[in-house]
Amino acid sequence: MQPNESPTYISRYRLKARKFLNAVSARTSFDGVLIRIDDGYGCIHTWPELGDPPLEKCLADLAGARRWPIVRRAIRCAEYDRAARQFEHSLFEEMEVPQSHATLVGMNAAELGRAMEAGFSTVKLKAGRDPQAEMKFLDEMSGEFPLLRWRLDFNESLTPDAAADFITGLADKTRAAMDFVEDPCPYSDSSWRALHQKACVPLAVDREASTQSSAAQVMVIKPAIDEPFLLAEAAIARRQKVVLTSYMDHPVGQTFAAWEAARLGLQFPGLPGLCGLQTHHLFEPDAFTEYLGPWSPEFTVPAGHGLGFDDLLDALPWTRLH
Amino acid sequence: MQPNESPTYISRYRLKARKFLNAVSARTSFDGVLIRIDDGYGCIHTWPELGDPPLEKCLADLAGARRWPIVRRAIRCAEYDRAARQFEHSLFEEMEVPQSHATLVGMNAAELGRAMEAGFSTVKLKAGRDPQAEMKFLDEMSGEFPLLRWRLDFNESLTPDAAADFITGLADKTRAAMDFVEDPCPYSDSSWRALHQKACVPLAVDREASTQSSAAQVMVIKPAIDEPFLLAEAAIARRQKVVLTSYMDHPVGQTFAAWEAARLGLQFPGLPGLCGLQTHHLFEPDAFTEYLGPWSPEFTVPAGHGLGFDDLLDALPWTRLH
Ligand SMILES: [Mg+2]
Ligand SMILES: [Mg+2]
Repeated sequence: MQPNESPTYISRYRLKARKFLNAVSARTSFDGVLIRIDDGYGCIHTWPELGDPPLEKCLADLAGARRWPIVRRAIRCAEYDRAARQFEHSLFEEMEVPQSHATLVGMNAAELGRAMEAGFSTVKLKAGRDPQAEMKFLDEMSGEFPLLRWRLDFNESLTPDAAADFITGLADKTRAAMDFVEDPCPYSDSSWRALHQKACVPLAVDREASTQSSAAQVMVIKPAIDEPFLLAEAAIARRQKVVLTSYMDHPVGQTFAAWEAARLGLQFPGLPGLCGLQTHHLFEPDAFTEYLGPWSPEFTVPAGHGLGFDDLLDALPWTRLH
Repeated sequence: MQPNESPTYISRYRLKARKFLNAVSARTSFDGVLIRIDDGYGCIHTWPELGDPPLEKCLADLAGARRWPIVRRAIRCAEYDRAARQFEHSLFEEMEVPQSHATLVGMNAAELGRAMEAGFSTVKLKAGRDPQAEMKFLDEMSGEFPLLRWRLDFNESLTPDAAADFITGLADKTRAAMDFVEDPCPYSDSSWRALHQKACVPLAVDREASTQSSAAQVMVIKPAIDEPFLLAEAAIARRQKVVLTSYMDHPVGQTFAAWEAARLGLQFPGLPGLCGLQTHHLFEPDAFTEYLGPWSPEFTVPAGHGLGFDDLLDALPWTRLH
């Protein structure tokens, strides 16, 4: 990469959570930046709670060495976006975006009901804050919504033993409805292998997703920070299922994740399973989220060139990065 | 059911296998009948090898008591078909047929390659004739086609111990790519539970699919002989995944299975998984299979009213059943 050839512009944004994103963060507002390089756009959205460098450090990296994956991926996004805008094409032409699960951040029966009504077949629930209450909630909800399939994301908050207790302690029906359990505990080959044998439920690796995480049955790829192609090749080599997710970031970043998911499906037909690309409903609506349509398993491709949002991006205040 | 109110007509057909359907049958041609009642059409296709009554007995039942599920289902099909034809509608209006796996009947690398080329992500292989050779074939092919997922159908040909040996004897990669193993051995709650625990691969129940088969993770529903709604309710109650398959029958019967799969998806959104509705390529092509288009994961809805095939059905010789 040859940094800083073209001037780089940024536009700061702040997302406000509609609910506490409570398994992840105690914050309720989330700052990030959109970047613009040669009329191509990208998004840098950091989650320091999950190990990302803070935003200001990312901006320093963007202005300088451009070493961090999260920064390089935003630049890569801007390159793709620019190429399509140049030719006045949408990046999504002839692309098919995979469907998504519903991302819920709390134990809320009403929200589950809304997810079913919106047509979601699978729900991803952030878990690990209060395992006893969550087990009870899951068993109850699995009774109430027998068609629903579950994905639980613990963000590595349990020990291997507590994870095994959690999964084997669920009612048989709930366990049968479990699509996968994500990051139940910190990844290690041996502890995950033992957990899988004991719990007999697919395990998904997210935080430590790498070409080495061979004890997982599912790999979570986040285009905001991962190069999908490289991880996908590793996943294929060990027959892992693949799920692409947005980064609970700005609609521009979310749309980039959706496009990468569609592109991976072209490169490797059938590889991307049900994804996690619908997260804009977690935040208060604005003009950008409007373009992404209602909460639905189907991704709404925003109108416009490149990744879309043409007029909105045009109207933002842009500052040249020093 | 009030039998014999309207005159019943039949038209015999013979399907010729393109390859030996060798795990199932030593025959290479397969006789069945299309039925016509009040200008609605259905199909009776029996597999005596798999426990069905012979065709002539079905015809006697059709002419008389109409007690057997395979006969009642054909009559039910003709009722739905007739209702749509009466109003000059396709039965498939506003329906979405689920995608299908590729059904292969033999260990044939070239045919696997063609399945990949045709866009299939998952292959169902009839197995159990020669377990050692099949294990070798699977491990080799799983190496060659790492994106492929597998469904194995043993038609209950193994013992529980042999089934466990087969599955656990596969390479890790092959086992990781196993979508499910169908009817590995005759169904029993205890032996299937033990097998699932040992092999840690989803088990699909087909032959003994019933409201009682609770040790399976997947239920195979065959609209040619099953009432989908009843089985689906049982599957939901125990969180089993559901796969609808055609009966390796005439395109009319195959199309009925596809329509039932679409209908079940309307009744229970998300319930039907990847199905097995594409079997016409197993037989020599004719005017009917032409309407079902090329071999593809996507079901081609035949043009016309009801289940389609209007002109072809019209042109067949029909005999009144005595
Ligand atoms: Mg995660
Ligand atoms: Mg079967």
